[in-house]
Order: sequence, then structure tokens, then C-alpha cells
Amino acid sequence: MIVLNGGSSSGKSGIARCLQAVLPDPWLAFGVDGLIQAMPASMRASDAGIEFGPDGGVLVGAEFRALEAAWIEGIAAMARAGARVIVDEVFLGGAASQQRWQKALGGLQVLWVGVRCESAVAAGREVARGDRVTGMAASQADAVHESVFYDVEVDTTHAEAMECARVIAALSGDGRRGCPLVPVPTHAPPRSGPRGPSSG
Amino acid sequence: MIVLNGGSSSGKSGIARCLQAVLPDPWLAFGVDGLIQAMPASMRASDAGIEFGPDGGVLVGAEFRALEAAWIEGIAAMARAGARVIVDEVFLGGAASQQRWQKALGGLQVLWVGVRCESAVAAGREVARGDRVTGMAASQADAVHESVFYDVEVDTTHAEAMECARVIAALSGDGRRGCPLVPVPTHAPPRSGPRGPSSG
Amino acid sequence: MIVLNGGSSSGKSGIARCLQAVLPDPWLAFGVDGLIQAMPASMRASDAGIEFGPDGGVLVGAEFRALEAAWIEGIAAMARAGARVIVDEVFLGGAASQQRWQKALGGLQVLWVGVRCESAVAAGREVARGDRVTGMAASQADAVHESVFYDVEVDTTHAEAMECARVIAALSGDGRRGCPLVPVPTHAPPRSGPRGPSSG
Amino acid sequence: MIVLNGGSSSGKSGIARCLQAVLPDPWLAFGVDGLIQAMPASMRASDAGIEFGPDGGVLVGAEFRALEAAWIEGIAAMARAGARVIVDEVFLGGAASQQRWQKALGGLQVLWVGVRCESAVAAGREVARGDRVTGMAASQADAVHESVFYDVEVDTTHAEAMECARVIAALSGDGRRGCPLVPVPTHAPPRSGPRGPSSG
Repeated sequence: MIVLNGGSSSGKSGIARCLQAVLPDPWLAFGVDGLIQAMPASMRASDAGIEFGPDGGVLVGAEFRALEAAWIEGIAAMARAGARVIVDEVFLGGAASQQRWQKALGGLQVLWVGVRCESAVAAGREVARGDRVTGMAASQADAVHESVFYDVEVDTTHAEAMECARVIAALSGDGRRGCPLVPVPTHAPPRSGPRGPSSG
Repeated sequence: MIVLNGGSSSGKSGIARCLQAVLPDPWLAFGVDGLIQAMPASMRASDAGIEFGPDGGVLVGAEFRALEAAWIEGIAAMARAGARVIVDEVFLGGAASQQRWQKALGGLQVLWVGVRCESAVAAGREVARGDRVTGMAASQADAVHESVFYDVEVDTTHAEAMECARVIAALSGDGRRGCPLVPVPTHAPPRSGPRGPSSG
Repeated sequence: MIVLNGGSSSGKSGIARCLQAVLPDPWLAFGVDGLIQAMPASMRASDAGIEFGPDGGVLVGAEFRALEAAWIEGIAAMARAGARVIVDEVFLGGAASQQRWQKALGGLQVLWVGVRCESAVAAGREVARGDRVTGMAASQADAVHESVFYDVEVDTTHAEAMECARVIAALSGDGRRGCPLVPVPTHAPPRSGPRGPSSG
Repeated sequence: MIVLNGGSSSGKSGIARCLQAVLPDPWLAFGVDGLIQAMPASMRASDAGIEFGPDGGVLVGAEFRALEAAWIEGIAAMARAGARVIVDEVFLGGAASQQRWQKALGGLQVLWVGVRCESAVAAGREVARGDRVTGMAASQADAVHESVFYDVEVDTTHAEAMECARVIAALSGDGRRGCPLVPVPTHAPPRSGPRGPSSG
């Protein structure tokens, strides 16, 4: 499994699609946007569900958390059933969000990927996309990485989605059957462009 | 769990959204369209993946089947983890498709729903939607129901999605905790509009 | 030109796509949804632009009106330049909205079509679509037809988009070159299903 | 008026949305994608209409050209009626395409903007978007600029949509009422990032 974590408009979905194109085997790609789409419309603006504030803040309620937990279990089960899965996530709770995934993914080989993008650049891309609540990009750019550990980090501020995907694919072990996942030091300075195994 | 099976443009997704609106608890809704979206773009027109013929026919390859099997396992795991789940499916293989789901859903309470729509009407709605391959509605209208059993059948030819959803919701047991699912005879003549428990 | 007027979720866009499919010549279809998409994002929730209230009400400001007036002039110019054009509109101002179009379309042959749908049915379809502000269908169902005159009215409550399109196409004069547009009496009781030339 | 010309996936639509955000007055944004959406579905894969080849090539027929000519007249009429309009175009015919617009826009103040993007980068973004025919980006990257003249050129290879929009907005005259449009020399070397008035 590959888990991409980054703020809104940091470029995760584009990287996921490029990964699907460059990885030799077929991978499924799921994301938290798909989970929100799967929820009842009434959950999208309620205290129990998810609320998008006018300033780009996101509030998540208890019922959202319960459905999300079941969704995470389901994604893990897909991987256990043999599917290669890319998840495109926004760890609103930082390390706590990662722990929820770690617990569900126990025993599976996971590549944790941090997708960075400078706040001002992500905010500009949010405007260019035209379909997102303004302010989400800026408010999430740093918060989602708090105390999260990664096998590799990429930075879309100056790198294309395709370049980032190639860096990640080289580490994913796909296409190199029998070759174990090479762990990458994770304490190198972030935001310095895509980093491969040798850059740590 | 609620599994809706019907041909393209028979109105399954609309019924799923209405179910989410009328059922008192929050339900997640997933569908085979979402699975196809989750696959690599290259799988959408390849022998190994899924192919949409110019006449509306759909061919599915071995790799598609493998990913689909894992996806079904994952949806089942979401339900086992406590989520209420509506699945919107197209049983291209008829009874064989249903058996794949039955095997994965073993032990879960499932309401099987047939969503019928007269072929000519579904074909007209396909044109009105404007985003589907022409011919899928007609070619699937009957084939997907072959030898499939249902707890209840609805027919969108003359009934609104909301009416169908109310019929299904009344049988779903949601909101009536402790009340067992009432099975509905399934051999009544199809295509006679939404049928409730008393109509069989 | 064909101008379709009806409330949100009354089925105008589906009828427009079916018209494009059944009319022998190629027709362009434009709608007020496209105009809103063409406006700056900031206009979509501002006093000067357009505002969608939580109850489904729609407020339109002065700058919206100015851009809309230019858009109407542009659509009229496309028709004068030889394009066959279907417009899918919501006359929030009833007769006053129609007069704005009439003034711009002076000299052009126009078929005015009222698209009716019972309020409760349109509200259910709004839920089934899942992408509209709840309440718009109900609040617009009758108001948009106030004091508006039509060459023909269709009612999607019990008729498919394709059936409605065939009724309209038969009156459009397309395919019957040289045959003048047959005006249809417009004071027959509304909401009685699609009405053709012989029903007036 | 502002006319943006560039190949598929060069970033025109994102620049258009950023322009709408940074320009002080409300501007309408239309594009050739919208025109294609407005055409009958049958025109999207026919000899008379528009055809997308498996290799990303685009063929346009006589009926497409006729509707396009009327559409161009309509956009010009919107501008003459007082609307500020951004057009996002793909000059498949190079200079000949520009001449069609020039003829229709006679008498209007137009800012011609070339949107460049290196072919390989645009091709990568095409994959990342996931909703385009593969190959269009590469096949159009250079061809659409052939013998076209511009007031300003921007290059999205290394510049964000928002940066490009700021360069264009500074030249658009909007917000500087009474100040004439400053023409920019157009024979400077292309593909060197966004160029402002002083860079020519």
C-alpha cells in the first residue's frame, strides 16, 4: 500500500493518477474525497458529519469518525485481499490520524508519503481549480504533517506530479518482485523537492 | 447492507441517494462506477481491464475481476466494521455476480434489491443524461437480472426514485432496531412498479 | 431558437439533450447553469452576484443582471449568425425574465416551451441528483411560470424527457424546411402531460 | 477581451480562473471545452463534428466549423454588449484560427495571450488530470502557436497559474480605467516564463 498525506490542493490526486500510470501493476486509488462523496448529503454540513467553514476550516463530527473508521478497515481489507492500493488522505489530526491507519494496516507493507506544497502556492492552485472552498489549502498546508512520519516526502511546489510519482514508484517495490521495500530516513529537512533514497 | 442491482440508467444511484436521505441513520453509498474510477485509466480500455464497446456492450478482463474481488471484500469489511452500506451494482454476470457478493457478505444481513426499468425508457434516460456510452442501458436492462434473486424489486419505469427508496427503506430494518428483516417473496412477476411486503 | 423555461430539477437539461438527439440538424444547447459557471467564483456567493439561500431561494444582484444581459445578447447573436440554439432557462422573474429574452431575440423565430413538474416530484428528483441546493426545486416549481406565455408546455411529472423532446421537436419546424412554425394555443390547462399540436 | 491560446493541459483554464479572481471587475470566462459540451453528443465522434483520435489528434468537420463560427460571433456580441470576457481557446489551425477571432472581434480591444507549456510537462499534467485523451497535450503543444501573434506570452512550465494571471492582469487595463492597453512586443523568445511589459 501507498498512503499519500497532504493538505488540500497539494497535488495528491494528480500524483496518485501518475503513480497508476507509471507502476507496472494495476493499483486502485481511493481518497478521502471519495469517502465524503459516499456519505449522505446531510452529513456534508452537519455537526455530526463534516463542515467546511467559510475560512477553509474543516470540522469533523462523531458520526463522520465512525464511518471513516469503517472505511479505513475496508481499504485495509482490500489490500489484504490482494489489491495494490494508493490512498490519498488529509491527516487533519496529524499523528493521531496516521495512528488510525497504522492500526488498521497492521501486517501490511505500507509506503508512507508526505506530499508537501508551500502554503501560498497551494492557495493559488486552489483558486485555479475553482472547485474547492477557499482557504482549505492554506489552513491545511502545514497542520496535516504535524508529527507524522514518512518513508519519503515529495514537494510539489517546484516538482511536477509525474516527477513525484517516479520518485515514489522507485521506492514502492512494484516491478521489483521479491525486492523488499527500502526504508528511507525520514528526518531529512522537508520541502526540498522530491527526495529519493539517496537524498536522506 | 443494501445491494441494488440494475442495468445502466435504471436509476440505481438516484435511489441510493434518496435512501441516504430517508433512512434515519447515516449510510455509506458505493457503486461499481466508483470502482471503475479507482482503477488506472489504462484499465478502462484494455483487454485486461474493462472495455465499453461502441454498441454499449461491456467486456471485463481478468485483472478487472481480481481488483473487483478485492473491492468486494473491502466493502464487506466496512459493513462488518459497523458501517451501514448501500451498494449500487450492475450484475453483468447475473447469478454468478450475485454469488460473488453472497460469498463475501456471509454472515451479514443483506437486503437484495432489483432495480428494473423498461429497456426503451432506460435508453431514453441514457440520452437525457448525456454522459454514458449509448447502448449500455438497452443491452443491460434484462441481462443483469438473469437468475438473480431479490428481497424486493422496484421498477423505475413509472415510479420516482424517492418512491422506490421509501419502499426499500420500509424493508431495511433501519429505524426499527431489533425488528428482523422481513423477507419478501421474490417470484412475483417483475416490472409491475415498486412492490412492498404485501404485494408479493 | 427553442427556449425551455422551468424550475430547478424540472428536467430541462435532459429535454435539451434529447432534443439534440432527435432533431435532424445540429443544435447548440446553452443554459443558465453554464452562465453561472462562467462567472467568477466570488460572484457565486455575493450580494452583487448570485446567492443560494439555505432554503433553496436564489437572490440575484446588479452585477449578475448586467453580465446576464450581455450573455443573452450573445446567445441571440449566435442564433442570428445561423446556429440553431436551445436555451435552458429559469425565469426567476417570471414574465419580466421572458421580456428580457424577447427584446434580445427580436426578429428571430422562437419556440417558447414551458417545462412543468409537480413541486413534490421535482423536490424528490433534487434529492436523487444529489448535487443541488435542497429546496430550489420546490421554491421555483410554480414561480418561474408566472405570467409567462408558451407555444407549448410539457410536464415531466409523468412523461419522460424523450417523450417531451419529441413533442417539442414536432413543433420546432426543424426537418420540415419551408414549413412555418405552427403556433400552439397557450391557454390550455397546464400540467396535463406533454401536449402536441392537436391537443390545444 | 482577453484571448488565451494554448495546447491541451497547458493550464489555460486555471489561468482564466485566477484572472477572474485577481481582476477587480467581474469577467465572464468561456472556452472551447464549453462549446464542445454545448454540441450534440453525436457531434463529438463524427466526421461532421469533432473526433478525438487514439493518439490525441483532433479532427474537426464542416458542421463543427459552422457552429463554432456562430459561437465566436456570440462571444463577440457579449463583449460588445459590455461584458468583460476571457476566452480560453486552442488554435488548432494556428494563424487561421486567430484570424477567425480577429474578424469577429473587429473594433474591440483584445489582449492576445499565448499560453506555453513544454510538451513533456503538459503530457505529464494530462496524466495527472486523468480526464483527457492521452496524447492531446503533446500533439498540440507547439502546433497551436504556429504563426500566431501575441501581446504577451506566459509559460506554465515553471510558473504557477496565479503568477501568469498577475502578469496578464497587469496588462489588461482593468482597474486602470482610461489607461490604454499597453502593447507588448511579441517577437521576444518564447518559453522563458511569464513576461511582463518590461521584459520584451
